[in-house]
Amino acid sequence: MNVTLRGRTRHYRTVTFDADRNSVMLVEQRLLPHRFEIVAAKDFLETARAIRDMVVRGAGAIGATAAYGLAQGARAFRGRNLAGFNRHMKVVYRALKDARPTAVDPVNAMDRLLKDMAAGVTVEERQALALAAAEQFAEEDVAHCEAIGRHGARLIRNGMRVLTHCNAGWLAFVDIGSATAPMYVAHDQGRKFHVYCDETRPRCQGATLTAWELAQEGISHQIIADNAAGHLMQRGDIDLVIVGSDRTLGRTGEVANKIGTYTKAVLAKRHRIPFYVAIPLSTIDWKLRSGFDIPIEERNEAEVLGAWGTLVTTSSSRKLSSPKSQSSPQSSKLSYVRVANPASTARNPGFDVTPAELITGIITPAGVFKPTELWPRRRELGWDA
Amino acid sequence: MNVTLRGRTRHYRTVTFDADRNSVMLVEQRLLPHRFEIVAAKDFLETARAIRDMVVRGAGAIGATAAYGLAQGARAFRGRNLAGFNRHMKVVYRALKDARPTAVDPVNAMDRLLKDMAAGVTVEERQALALAAAEQFAEEDVAHCEAIGRHGARLIRNGMRVLTHCNAGWLAFVDIGSATAPMYVAHDQGRKFHVYCDETRPRCQGATLTAWELAQEGISHQIIADNAAGHLMQRGDIDLVIVGSDRTLGRTGEVANKIGTYTKAVLAKRHRIPFYVAIPLSTIDWKLRSGFDIPIEERNEAEVLGAWGTLVTTSSSRKLSSPKSQSSPQSSKLSYVRVANPASTARNPGFDVTPAELITGIITPAGVFKPTELWPRRRELGWDA
Repeated sequence: MNVTLRGRTRHYRTVTFDADRNSVMLVEQRLLPHRFEIVAAKDFLETARAIRDMVVRGAGAIGATAAYGLAQGARAFRGRNLAGFNRHMKVVYRALKDARPTAVDPVNAMDRLLKDMAAGVTVEERQALALAAAEQFAEEDVAHCEAIGRHGARLIRNGMRVLTHCNAGWLAFVDIGSATAPMYVAHDQGRKFHVYCDETRPRCQGATLTAWELAQEGISHQIIADNAAGHLMQRGDIDLVIVGSDRTLGRTGEVANKIGTYTKAVLAKRHRIPFYVAIPLSTIDWKLRSGFDIPIEERNEAEVLGAWGTLVTTSSSRKLSSPKSQSSPQSSKLSYVRVANPASTARNPGFDVTPAELITGIITPAGVFKPTELWPRRRELGWDA
Repeated sequence: MNVTLRGRTRHYRTVTFDADRNSVMLVEQRLLPHRFEIVAAKDFLETARAIRDMVVRGAGAIGATAAYGLAQGARAFRGRNLAGFNRHMKVVYRALKDARPTAVDPVNAMDRLLKDMAAGVTVEERQALALAAAEQFAEEDVAHCEAIGRHGARLIRNGMRVLTHCNAGWLAFVDIGSATAPMYVAHDQGRKFHVYCDETRPRCQGATLTAWELAQEGISHQIIADNAAGHLMQRGDIDLVIVGSDRTLGRTGEVANKIGTYTKAVLAKRHRIPFYVAIPLSTIDWKLRSGFDIPIEERNEAEVLGAWGTLVTTSSSRKLSSPKSQSSPQSSKLSYVRVANPASTARNPGFDVTPAELITGIITPAGVFKPTELWPRRRELGWDA
């Protein structure tokens, strides 16, 4: 994606590899949208820590990061002893896997690398194969997102108002994104449209990450409170919804995604607004038989009870001294404010499940399908019997 | 309502009048939930400013404040010249009306006072009648909320999980509240239930005010992100929804309330969860013929782009140093943090309209009615032909 820094626009990927320095280079996502910074993870332990601490997040992005991390670990091995190398690789694999124990993408990515590496006879060959496989994994992630963009861009017509939820964007993949891919391609093709970004409480990925991405690409957009989408649909101000997915059930077409996705799907159905989910094939779960079997992570209640941002003002009452002051933060550091009543607690489910009947279509790199078409077409969609 | 300060529990009203000091006494709502303070508005101009600056907010509370403000202004007049007094009263009326130009409650309250005052022959008599009428207005506000509570409490059964949105509580009235009234009465009657408070972005009245009220009364509750209600309903964790209303159309049963109310009603309908709206009769609009004619205020975008709270920590990444630190703010001052991408803007509609078909019942001081029953029963419900 294009990022403009100090007036200069350059193309960046979320995850790349510096072979000379044997370092994984990552966009430091926890600082966005307030500061853009590329950080280097200099060994596989630093790479594992970056995944765990969410320097990098999003299915495709952590998959590629783990792949590069495994190659990085392989390349750090000194010596020619294959048995020693294999023992070392087990340690590397475990460290990267344990960084996000419930995520499936790092594991899938690393398993592919190990398979490719097995063709090497010497340590040196395996090291080279690891890097080549990691690069290939990242390239494929980009190619899949590009294909999602091509198929999905046809849904976006001139003048449309498109709603999206959370961040299934460039930052969640190596480049381009899933839910945002159709927008970037339609924009490149010269179409004019407007995007409403759900704020996406409690972590506000829509207000922070998606809005930042769209601003970088010069796409017209506005942030709305999650509460406002229903009203905008009722007044005819939304024509299309596109979201991403953390896990899509191949058997039922159910979609697990960021909390609030289900609500938007229910609203879209009521207002007969097309509701699309954009996914790479790797996020299809062919095993689970019901969305109710998807474990829903209960996250830290501090996310709901407060908010992170840059400190603008402190005063004895809720009043901004000037409208201008809201956009000129005093510091690039992040502050956490406690919003809620100090004596109260919160519930914080991180995801919800949207049933197939609310979903107009699933945009995949292989084309756009009805959610119930995934299973009958499983052979062409990468079903692993 | 009961408030515990430094270990001592006392009953407070949101708005009272100190006749000796001729002052309107108000709970300073902009400091809640972080600090509880009663402030004195010492003349009618200070009272008008308190309404304008939202020291006091909520239909019933600003109605009573304007009523007391009008009596306060009347009592400040020196002399016996009735013509001079009447000119003075026009100034007082105008100042209080202009404090919240779109609100209907202050005007209704003051018009009733002026009518009662007209029975007085001398300035002194009119001053006394003004205060008596203001006190009566406040007492009636309390009595109406108590009646809402009695009728609504029957809906809350042991073990229920009740969802509410925004703050239609004690703080929005003189006492008890509308949407919260059934909860307070059911609690007094010894029933055990749990309340989920929608955070209610962007102003977070649920996380701040409603959660604070429920905590003061010792009612079991948790705050949830507005995004989480759909998921909780889908998993069977919500049995009943009760919200308030800023304006209810007597002819159609449509309800205008805080942004996000419509979304909760759509979700409740899908899950066959009873959805009730609690209102005093004064908020029924008998004139408008369609909810689409209700003007929806577009509020300051800074509300969506950031959040107010007490500063807990400032760091170079989104990480709380300890879980404990989230509930021990360093200061009782309020800070505003910019959450959203600095280069992005927001849309911020303040209210939405829920159609009658989504509403199970309207809880009024006169009983619980279907939304379509309001018009046929308009004579007993205070219809002003």
